[in-house]
Amino acid sequence: MNQRKDSLETMFYPRSIAVVGASNNPKKIGHEIVKNLRRFKGTVYPVNPREKKVGGVRSYPTVRDIEGPVDLALIAIPSAGVRDVLEHCGEKGVRSAVVITAGYSEIGNKGPEQDIVKVARSYGIRLIGPNTVGIANNDNALNATFLMDSKQGHIAFLSQSGALGAAIIYKTVYEHLGFSKFVSLGNMADIDFCDMLNYLEHDNATKSVALYMEGVKDGKSFIESARRCSLKKPVIALKSGISGAGARATASHTGSLAGNDRIYDAAFAQAGVIRAPNIDRLLDAAKVFSQPRMDGNNVAIITNAGGPGILAADECERVGLAVSELPNALQEKLRALLPSYASVKNPIDTIAQAGHREYFESIKALQCDKSIDAILAIIVVPTFTNIGMNIHARALIEGWDASTPLVTCFMSGEVAETSMRLVDAHGIPSYPTPERAAWALGALWKHSRWCNEH
Amino acid sequence: MNQRKDSLETMFYPRSIAVVGASNNPKKIGHEIVKNLRRFKGTVYPVNPREKKVGGVRSYPTVRDIEGPVDLALIAIPSAGVRDVLEHCGEKGVRSAVVITAGYSEIGNKGPEQDIVKVARSYGIRLIGPNTVGIANNDNALNATFLMDSKQGHIAFLSQSGALGAAIIYKTVYEHLGFSKFVSLGNMADIDFCDMLNYLEHDNATKSVALYMEGVKDGKSFIESARRCSLKKPVIALKSGISGAGARATASHTGSLAGNDRIYDAAFAQAGVIRAPNIDRLLDAAKVFSQPRMDGNNVAIITNAGGPGILAADECERVGLAVSELPNALQEKLRALLPSYASVKNPIDTIAQAGHREYFESIKALQCDKSIDAILAIIVVPTFTNIGMNIHARALIEGWDASTPLVTCFMSGEVAETSMRLVDAHGIPSYPTPERAAWALGALWKHSRWCNEH
Repeated sequence: MNQRKDSLETMFYPRSIAVVGASNNPKKIGHEIVKNLRRFKGTVYPVNPREKKVGGVRSYPTVRDIEGPVDLALIAIPSAGVRDVLEHCGEKGVRSAVVITAGYSEIGNKGPEQDIVKVARSYGIRLIGPNTVGIANNDNALNATFLMDSKQGHIAFLSQSGALGAAIIYKTVYEHLGFSKFVSLGNMADIDFCDMLNYLEHDNATKSVALYMEGVKDGKSFIESARRCSLKKPVIALKSGISGAGARATASHTGSLAGNDRIYDAAFAQAGVIRAPNIDRLLDAAKVFSQPRMDGNNVAIITNAGGPGILAADECERVGLAVSELPNALQEKLRALLPSYASVKNPIDTIAQAGHREYFESIKALQCDKSIDAILAIIVVPTFTNIGMNIHARALIEGWDASTPLVTCFMSGEVAETSMRLVDAHGIPSYPTPERAAWALGALWKHSRWCNEH
Repeated sequence: MNQRKDSLETMFYPRSIAVVGASNNPKKIGHEIVKNLRRFKGTVYPVNPREKKVGGVRSYPTVRDIEGPVDLALIAIPSAGVRDVLEHCGEKGVRSAVVITAGYSEIGNKGPEQDIVKVARSYGIRLIGPNTVGIANNDNALNATFLMDSKQGHIAFLSQSGALGAAIIYKTVYEHLGFSKFVSLGNMADIDFCDMLNYLEHDNATKSVALYMEGVKDGKSFIESARRCSLKKPVIALKSGISGAGARATASHTGSLAGNDRIYDAAFAQAGVIRAPNIDRLLDAAKVFSQPRMDGNNVAIITNAGGPGILAADECERVGLAVSELPNALQEKLRALLPSYASVKNPIDTIAQAGHREYFESIKALQCDKSIDAILAIIVVPTFTNIGMNIHARALIEGWDASTPLVTCFMSGEVAETSMRLVDAHGIPSYPTPERAAWALGALWKHSRWCNEH
């Protein structure tokens, strides 16, 4: 276990990296990788026998020719040469390798894949891939992929599909969601979900782990690793290949067996893994875990518009949360604070006139009340008034004491964007619809309850 | 019925509008409304006894003082004066009124609401509201609300919540989704969902009708109207107030009774109304109906990335669509077109190298095959290659002959945006995730099947 952990530590925090297949040709993956390593603080060694320099840096014919120590090898060359490169890495004492090269078990070539794993293991090299787009560690300014830089954050994202991982990185950059670590696991010939969960369990930069999964080979180990990780930090999984057609496609994609979906359901439940039904929910849930755990399931909804409050209440109850009438004393407190037409039962409908003072004082009142386990605050752009929404965002930031979980929904497209960025930057998750905010809160409750029970 | 239809026609296509409560004070709703009518081609008459001119235009003390005919009155004054204004409208021969003023049944004031309806009916005035944010008709450059202009499109959107309607307008402008008509129905003291559905059934500018509904008063009439409309064009409903807390809030919001949710489920099924579980799905479904009806439920998925294709297949089967293996002849045709590692079973995984030619030829082959009832095309940004996504968008636009329904998913955040706008502009709906595209296609199939059966 320790050796494993050490190898992964070396992989995410290498002092030096060899890029095998480094290139000056912008059409080559090895060119993009070298470019993406520009922010990396350690040493980068291009390896390519046909280049003297890559990106202005001396290129080596083989990994063996590098003078200094090499912690991590990134391999992006045609598959025929990968075995030799791993031999060189072994001789050089390299501890970890990411094999980007494709053309292995995903297209039926199982033999060559077993072969490279055998070589790697004979030298004690841990290996990610093959058929991966790479790894990134934003805690270390390391982008060892041929994708754009992801944003820094507290979610570790593991994807069994490289292209989906790529698409999600682009999407999260656009939506201002950050990752601590990103791993495209590829064919998982060596390192798999279990290794990653064992490592991430102890990773201080990571608050939650999001998985895109097509299938695991060893269910028992997965349950063990996921269960242990779940006790420390939530694991959320989007498992695909549920449908007949999906399972068929899975086999020809990463070579995985999708398996019986009910078995996965049972395994996830046993391991405390929260199952997400789609991409949006996967990321929505992962984002909510900046919040403290919930002691119970009672949610106070505060909204400046009736309809969205009702939609939030509906979704809360659908996902196992309660939206109970507030205690009388709290109702009276709120009635004194809020405009006369406001409703103070729960959802609390402040009506559109409510501004900074009303939201600030309400949040303070709600988080002092022991019957409230979480707060869901909704703000719809005040129509035609020019007060904007940032005043509500600031009211929440200033009023919230971080003791009671708080999630927010700022509705109205572009005008809501700055408010969303503002609360996000203060550790308060924002969502674009009331239903998504409520669903995420449901995930927080699921994990909190599971932890209480285990 | 004819008179009803005529009144609504007058409301959406007025020659002249009186704005009662028009104001030069930017804090007043009547100021915003006058500003929003700047694009309106007919005559606008400000009415305000305390102003000589509003926005540079002569203001009248009362509606009666206006010389020319008035088709529509927009009323945005304190509730105490609304009754008199309606009397004036009646004497003037105004046929339709939108009462923006709030403070009626939504806060328990049922008497005054019944009173204004009585006055309106005594003069044959049809009335929207009270407690509405207004109406808009993009087919006539009419924005009779105090909200921003919505985008022009083919969806009629009816909202029982003003603030939610407002939030959705802002959201759809941001997401480039267009409306033919927008109506904030408010308390529905007179005009309700039935009147609107009866009218929209015949509205050529509208291809689908999206409803945000808290409750209806006359279920039988709703089923009749919705059923008749559904036969011509799809009706999609987001019904809230499902939960206990939601139902409680509904009563104090628009004064509606949320009712037993199963009754609504049954009513929707009987009327062919497609039920959406949340805001995103409501709009996703409404958008898909630019496509022709489906003859059967068999979908071909084409993707340049494995994972998203599997997610799409899963969601397709979940919503009642089939993703069957393609006929042999079609598989052979595709195998000749696509890169050697492509999978041609269904999902068709073209792999990342596929560009314009591959997508163009594949779409042509798929739509020629009678076994394919719809096509779902997924494009993930080709990582690190500089070919971009617009080539795929153009391939779809050029290859599609509009005979087979086509929906698309362009994944990758900002880089996908231009492609999404491009296909949208050519009448091909785009979605940001594979699951949302698949769900929308499911809605198309549900409506197609219902129409075949009725």
